[in-house]
Parts: sequence; C-alpha cells; structure tokens
Amino acid sequence: MTASAAALDTIRSEVDRSLKEFVDRQRPLVSAPELAPLISAAEEFLSGGKRLRPAFCYWGWHGAGGGDDPALFTAAASLELLQASALVHDDVMDASDLRRGMPSAHRRFQALHEKEGWRGSAEQFGEGAAILLGNLLLIWSGEMWRGSGLPQASLAAAQEVHDHMRTELMCGQYLDLLEQAHADNTFDSALRVALFKSGKYSVEQPLRLGLVLAARGREPWIDRLCEAYGRCVGIAFQLRDDILGVFGDPAETGKPAGDDLREGKRTMLIARTLAAASPAQVKVVDGMLGDPGLDAAGVGRLRGIIEETGALAACEDMIKSYLDDALNSLDDAPITGEARTALADLAVAATSRRT
Amino acid sequence: MTASAAALDTIRSEVDRSLKEFVDRQRPLVSAPELAPLISAAEEFLSGGKRLRPAFCYWGWHGAGGGDDPALFTAAASLELLQASALVHDDVMDASDLRRGMPSAHRRFQALHEKEGWRGSAEQFGEGAAILLGNLLLIWSGEMWRGSGLPQASLAAAQEVHDHMRTELMCGQYLDLLEQAHADNTFDSALRVALFKSGKYSVEQPLRLGLVLAARGREPWIDRLCEAYGRCVGIAFQLRDDILGVFGDPAETGKPAGDDLREGKRTMLIARTLAAASPAQVKVVDGMLGDPGLDAAGVGRLRGIIEETGALAACEDMIKSYLDDALNSLDDAPITGEARTALADLAVAATSRRT
Repeated sequence: MTASAAALDTIRSEVDRSLKEFVDRQRPLVSAPELAPLISAAEEFLSGGKRLRPAFCYWGWHGAGGGDDPALFTAAASLELLQASALVHDDVMDASDLRRGMPSAHRRFQALHEKEGWRGSAEQFGEGAAILLGNLLLIWSGEMWRGSGLPQASLAAAQEVHDHMRTELMCGQYLDLLEQAHADNTFDSALRVALFKSGKYSVEQPLRLGLVLAARGREPWIDRLCEAYGRCVGIAFQLRDDILGVFGDPAETGKPAGDDLREGKRTMLIARTLAAASPAQVKVVDGMLGDPGLDAAGVGRLRGIIEETGALAACEDMIKSYLDDALNSLDDAPITGEARTALADLAVAATSRRT
Repeated sequence: MTASAAALDTIRSEVDRSLKEFVDRQRPLVSAPELAPLISAAEEFLSGGKRLRPAFCYWGWHGAGGGDDPALFTAAASLELLQASALVHDDVMDASDLRRGMPSAHRRFQALHEKEGWRGSAEQFGEGAAILLGNLLLIWSGEMWRGSGLPQASLAAAQEVHDHMRTELMCGQYLDLLEQAHADNTFDSALRVALFKSGKYSVEQPLRLGLVLAARGREPWIDRLCEAYGRCVGIAFQLRDDILGVFGDPAETGKPAGDDLREGKRTMLIARTLAAASPAQVKVVDGMLGDPGLDAAGVGRLRGIIEETGALAACEDMIKSYLDDALNSLDDAPITGEARTALADLAVAATSRRT
C-alpha cells in the first residue's frame, strides 16, 4: 500500500467518525419517534462513498502547509453532507429508483407509506420526505463546516469559496436540467455541464477550500492550481461517471445497467455518438434514448452504437488527456511533495474508478 | 398610524432593500443567460410578503436593548429567504398551482419548458428546477444571515438558535407530511404540527434570534418569553392560516377558494369538525376532503359542515385565547416599552390577517 493510499484509508475512517459524531449531536433535536426514518435515511445516505471530496480538501490543506488538526477532518467531512443532499434531490429530480444498489430516498419513504397503509399518494409522500431530507442534509453541511473547530481566521478566509461552491452547485444542476431539455447537446455544452454540475464541487472547490483554509487567504497560485488541476480532474471525473452510467457493472455501481440511457442523459458520450453516427444510427439513438422501458437488448444496441461510432474511445482519450494535464499542473505548484504525490494518485483514482 | 405600524413600514422597506442588495451581489455568480429564469423566480418569490418574521426579529433585538444598526435589517431579512425556500418546496410537495395569485415556482418552470418546446417531461423539469430554486434560497438565507455585518459576538451567540430553527423547520414539515398521511388527526397532533411546521420558525425563533443577538446570550427570561409569547402567537398564526385556507378570499390569499380542502389538509379546523360531526357529516367530509376535483358547490358544502359543527367558532375562540395569553406574557418581560407595544400589535396583526 502506498503512503497516499494509507492516508486515504485514514481520511475515510476519520470522515466516517466525524459524520457519526455530527449526526449523534443532532439526535436530541430530532428525537420524536416519528422522525426516526428521517435520521436513519440520513445515516444510510452518509455511509459508504469514496470520500473523494474530503480527500481533495485534506490534501489541499496539507499541501499548503496545514498541520495535523482533527478539526480539518470535520470540515472536510461536511462536504459529504452536501454530496448526500445532492444525491437525494438528484434522485427525486431524475425519478431514479436505486442509489448504490439500495432504494433511493424517495422510494424508501414511498415504501414506508405503502407498508403502513397511510392515506393519500405514497409517491407524493416519498418525494416530499426526500425533498425535506435533502434540505436537512444541506443545512447540516453548512452547520458542520462552520462548527468544525478550525481557527476563525481559516474559516473566514474560506467562507467566500464555500458560499460560492454551494450556489455554483445549484446553478450547475439547473444547467444540467437545461442540457437534458435542450436538444442541442454540443461538445461545448456537454463539457460545461460536466464541469459545473459535478467537476467544480467534486474536485476544484474541495481542493481550493483545503488550500485557502491552510493559507488563510486566496493567493494567486492557489487559484492557478485549482483551475488547472481541479478543472481537468473535475471534467475527467464526470466523463468517467458518464461512461459508468452506460457501461458500468451494476454489481459495482449499484445502478441498473445502462440507467443513464433509460433516463436519456445528454452527456459528452452521447454528444460524441450523435456527432459521428450515420443517419440510421442517429435514428436508433433518438428512438431509444430516454425510453424508460428500454430493455437489456436495447441497452446492448445503444452501447454497440456508442462503441462503433468511436465515442467511447474518444471519451476515454479525453479522460487520459485531462489526466495528463492535471498531473502536469502539479509540477510547479508550491505544495508539499507528499501532497503532490497524493493529488496525483487521487487524480488517477477519481478518473479510473469503477463505482 | 400608530408608532409600531410606522415602524413596520420601515422594517418592510429596509427588508426589501436588503434582499435586493443581497440578490444583486449574487448576480455575478449566476450571470449566464440561461440562469436568468432562476434569478427572476427568486426575485419574484422574495417580493411582497408581510415581512412578519423579520419584524419579530427586529422587535426582539430592540426589546433587548439593541441599538439602531442597519446590519440588523440584513440579518432579519435573511428569514425571508428561508421562508421563500419553504414556500417553493411546499408548493412542489403539495403540487400547488398558485402562490399569491401567481403560478407556483414549479408551474412557472413547467410553463417555460412548454413555451420553449423543450424535450422530455415539462412537469419533471418544473419540479426539478423548483427544488433547485428552493435550495438556492435556503443556501442564501444562511449566507445572508452570516454576512449581515452584525458583531461576531452577536452572531456567535445566536448561531445555535439559527441552526436549531432550520433543522426544526425541516422536521416540522416532515411531521406535517405524516399528519396528512396518518388518519388520526387528533387535537394534540394538529396542535403539534401547527407549532412545529410553522409557529416556531414564523414567530418564536425569529423573536428569539433578535433577543439573543442583542443580549449576546440566551438568558433564561428570553427563553421564557419566547416559549410563552412565541408559542401562543405561533400556534394562533397557523390556526389563522388554516382558516384562511378554507374560508379565505381568493382575491386576498392568492390561492383558489377552499384550496386546503382540495389538498385534504388535516388541520385543527378539520380535527374539530370531525370530532363534532354527525355520522352523516363525517361521511360527507371523508368523501370530499382531498378530492382534487372538488368544485365550488363541494367547497360550499364542506364549509357549511365546518361552520355547523362549531369547528370554525372553536378555532376562532382558540385564536382569541392564544392571543390573550400572548399579550399577558408580555407584561412582565424585561423588554423596552416600545417593543412591548410593537409585539402586542404584531401578535394581533399575525393572527387577524386576511392574507
């Protein structure tokens, strides 16, 4: 095991511990027995996960000379609450049934309604409860961040980045809705969505938060590094996500095979497919993409076209090329050698993952 | 015009100004032309409103000796962002078409999708965009609060109340969903929902925030006052809301006549109706309440039963009695005379409003 893989294990267990402590501190506020399903859903959506966002934040902090401070794990772990909130709301917006192989939050609450034989629409109850759960996680992410115990000077320096990240995430997700609704799906628009809906808050901003917390200010080299490394890894991270959404192994992704095809997600993979497809292939894609009833044969047919048009290979090439650029951007960044190695390893991990 | 009515006018215009300034400061972050509908929807849902929550906060601050400070208006105005977020999400959860006589946020985005002839489900787009808009408003409420410019010592003292209020709001709304889903609808459960879903964050917590900000600590008399006055006015506020949802004038409420009947809201008004109704009346209520297609005749019939059973009069009596208790609770509170008068006037305004 390399030093940075060992460090990632430490980060994961510290993040798990911080999240558990935080949720435990909320319990007195949400102690009414009827609220138990809300808390257990929150806990479930916070468990597991690759903890990549906290890891970017952690290595930003250490890269800019931050010392060992357990409060940093708490601040970094708060990014997982933001992420959990986004996933819960995303699944409502996409009407997704599964998340990591388990029922999505709204389906979970819907099942509770059905099991108890309550009045009214179980589906509407499920959606409402999931919206509220996502809000709770969103509120808690800010609360955990502020209450991390990091020095006020660090938190004050990073506050603007933190605020910006959250507004940007909501705007990025709105751009993603528009991308799905618009028919254009150009390379440019697909790239922009990949960056704003996911790349920024998954990589660039967590890294920037760690760096600014440690440096207690937003120095020009920090923005240069975050824009170069963060942008490249962020886009490549989302391109990997797009590929997993079509070609991922359900046993690893926890989502049905080809789920993004059934949802009709307009990604770079699809933009490249349509750009290189024959008129006959375009007709097939237009007819099948976004069909909620798409079966295994249909998924296989679309996968075939995505491969035959060279779109899959082109996206893999893009990932490689963004990864190279990201690794190069680390060369002259004034960060510690240990952080440089760890960020290089994280870039590889984030873009070659299988879940 | 009384002194406190004049003060309310000042509060309203200062809150409007603060909100406008805050949204203007966000504009550079959300400057992409495609994001314009998100911003204009935010602005629309922030305009108007009675600004009661900021007024409770303002009079808490002044009551506990807070001086004139424009930053207080900014902190108080942030409560309107929280409220706007709750309304936008509420309308999604209730599938409401109208808000203050205009299309609700999700219907607005749905109409944009339809007008532009975009791909996919206009309804799903509308809901997704409204969830994101509500999130943006929720994030901004915290940001505006923290960035108000009030002294750090004040903000630090009030932070726990602020955090608590937000968690409590989400839990209260979840309890409301449960109340609608459960069949019991007892007086106790209706009262609890009225308090937690609306009363606490509308009255008790805004007042507590103002008091704690000024006193820079949560002194025992503050909690005593907030629990007595806040609880009474908060519950009476929601009881008035329940009555307006059934008997309100659409020209004033901006909601269709009897909308709560169509949505099947289980409120104190309904609990009291069912408790006093004859078996024949219960049958009518059970058959008609929650019917989305309920017409004017049906609304009239249900209104008749609510009046005949004495439920309407009983709820009006409850409001009067809570109001009396609230006014009494002000007597020995160690607050300024001006604040005492203003809080008495506000209690009347909040419980006798027609919109």
